[in-house]
Amino acid sequence: MESQGLFLFIEVAAVIVSAVSGMIKAAEKKMDLVGTYSIALLVSFGGGTLRDILLNRRPFFWVENEVYLFIVLLMAIAFVYVPVVHKLAKVLYTRSNTIDAIGLGLFSIAGLFAALNMGMPLFSSSLMGVITGVAGGVFRDVVINEIPVIFRYTGGLYAVASFAGCWLCILLVVIFEAPFIGFISGTSMIVALRLLSIYWGLQLPRPLWVTDEDEK
Amino acid sequence: MESQGLFLFIEVAAVIVSAVSGMIKAAEKKMDLVGTYSIALLVSFGGGTLRDILLNRRPFFWVENEVYLFIVLLMAIAFVYVPVVHKLAKVLYTRSNTIDAIGLGLFSIAGLFAALNMGMPLFSSSLMGVITGVAGGVFRDVVINEIPVIFRYTGGLYAVASFAGCWLCILLVVIFEAPFIGFISGTSMIVALRLLSIYWGLQLPRPLWVTDEDEK
Amino acid sequence: MESQGLFLFIEVAAVIVSAVSGMIKAAEKKMDLVGTYSIALLVSFGGGTLRDILLNRRPFFWVENEVYLFIVLLMAIAFVYVPVVHKLAKVLYTRSNTIDAIGLGLFSIAGLFAALNMGMPLFSSSLMGVITGVAGGVFRDVVINEIPVIFRYTGGLYAVASFAGCWLCILLVVIFEAPFIGFISGTSMIVALRLLSIYWGLQLPRPLWVTDEDEK
Repeated sequence: MESQGLFLFIEVAAVIVSAVSGMIKAAEKKMDLVGTYSIALLVSFGGGTLRDILLNRRPFFWVENEVYLFIVLLMAIAFVYVPVVHKLAKVLYTRSNTIDAIGLGLFSIAGLFAALNMGMPLFSSSLMGVITGVAGGVFRDVVINEIPVIFRYTGGLYAVASFAGCWLCILLVVIFEAPFIGFISGTSMIVALRLLSIYWGLQLPRPLWVTDEDEK
Repeated sequence: MESQGLFLFIEVAAVIVSAVSGMIKAAEKKMDLVGTYSIALLVSFGGGTLRDILLNRRPFFWVENEVYLFIVLLMAIAFVYVPVVHKLAKVLYTRSNTIDAIGLGLFSIAGLFAALNMGMPLFSSSLMGVITGVAGGVFRDVVINEIPVIFRYTGGLYAVASFAGCWLCILLVVIFEAPFIGFISGTSMIVALRLLSIYWGLQLPRPLWVTDEDEK
Repeated sequence: MESQGLFLFIEVAAVIVSAVSGMIKAAEKKMDLVGTYSIALLVSFGGGTLRDILLNRRPFFWVENEVYLFIVLLMAIAFVYVPVVHKLAKVLYTRSNTIDAIGLGLFSIAGLFAALNMGMPLFSSSLMGVITGVAGGVFRDVVINEIPVIFRYTGGLYAVASFAGCWLCILLVVIFEAPFIGFISGTSMIVALRLLSIYWGLQLPRPLWVTDEDEK
């Protein structure tokens, strides 16, 4: 009961933060309401939708919970036309690292379990978890004509945090047959790694071809 | 009988106009025959294909009506290599607003009914209608490396026209149980809104972040 | 027995060459390990995955043969962090035209048979063969924000070689009911056309809009 309420809250928060991140990018690119709404949907639901297409699962999350589509539409209208909401959204977003990290963790582990439950083997399942967590942002960047930010060296751990958390979860599920503990531990690890990479500068070793100059 | 013939004519015309719009973009980007044909197919069949993937429907429109694939191939060859066809296509295209609008209307409402018939809820179905009508053009722009034109403020109503027409159709279908009237009214509304936005400058209110300068 | 071993070798070689081609592009764009691995997977498995989505086939090649995902991950790590491997991969790649061509041929004909076996009509099946052979490279170029190289006039025959080989195979299968001969002949034709276009400059006639200057 308690935890269901918590999950719902985090789910709503993750969808909202994802949508806002898409809207801000859309505004930077001088898009209109259509573009703003489209990019918001792409970020919020793109990853889960790609996962469900790959797993051949229906109905989609956003078909079963249509109200989200409607909420994001209202958000987009307010963001595009109401100055105070627009400013608020930007302020919220600059302080949303934690919510974004929780969203990454939650979506990744949810994607992982979806794949495992469909009988996918372990390594594919872990990638499916990562895809669920990160693909929305990749779609956003491809559509606004930029190289996906999570493929760049700067910006901290994102896909890697998701991958590590998925494997922690897999180990706990497979070895100890403890799905709930796996879920909590995996999500926590993703959130922790993501936030550590932002605040402490934790990152992967530098690729051979990146110089000091590339990092600005 | 009469109306079937009319539908077929409009379907053929919509496919041809979509294909030509893709070819012209491909030529602007100095693509070759392969690129020209690919972009033409993407514009003509991309939206319906995405819809069918999302709805898990098979076979695709272009598998059941393979002849379209072949027609578009012949068109692409002629467009790329025969000067008179190339010029004709460009002239046709500059005068094709009406056909393009009818295509948008027809494809949108067809997508809407496909979703409703699969038991999708109303709001998702309306978005599925919009996706069917507009996604081909979005794919084209993503592949030729431009920000999708329907996401920009200039250019008039496009997705919005489709959305409004889909909802008129839904209302008529749900309240009055009149699919045929819904089909005719929805399509007409989309065509009307699209053409009004082109010829009378009808458009959405300007987003907060767009200035006079941005509009050129 | 013999030929199975040969097929496995070519399959492995084609996956590796595809992955390396993706990694080199990722390095050019200064991506990190995540980007390098993602682009490598996209090139190696994107075409087959799109085909299976269009054909509604599961499980995917890379789910059934998960070990490839793992091999490509190890390759990406070595490519990003081990100087000697990085250099070796670049040298290998500049000499890999033949392997790449065999990969194109093999993947195309495999895609063609997959479509024919699902009962798809002939023309759609031939396009499905081409998509399987070339879509991975198109995805790579879209994500790294370039116009797909196979849509440009320079670069020789690629999709066209695949298309021609698929049709040779279809003719042999349909007229002579000789799948194995079709497979061998189709693949050979693709490889031959691809290599002839590279070494002898065989190409399509120049589109109307391409001038001497465009060709550099």
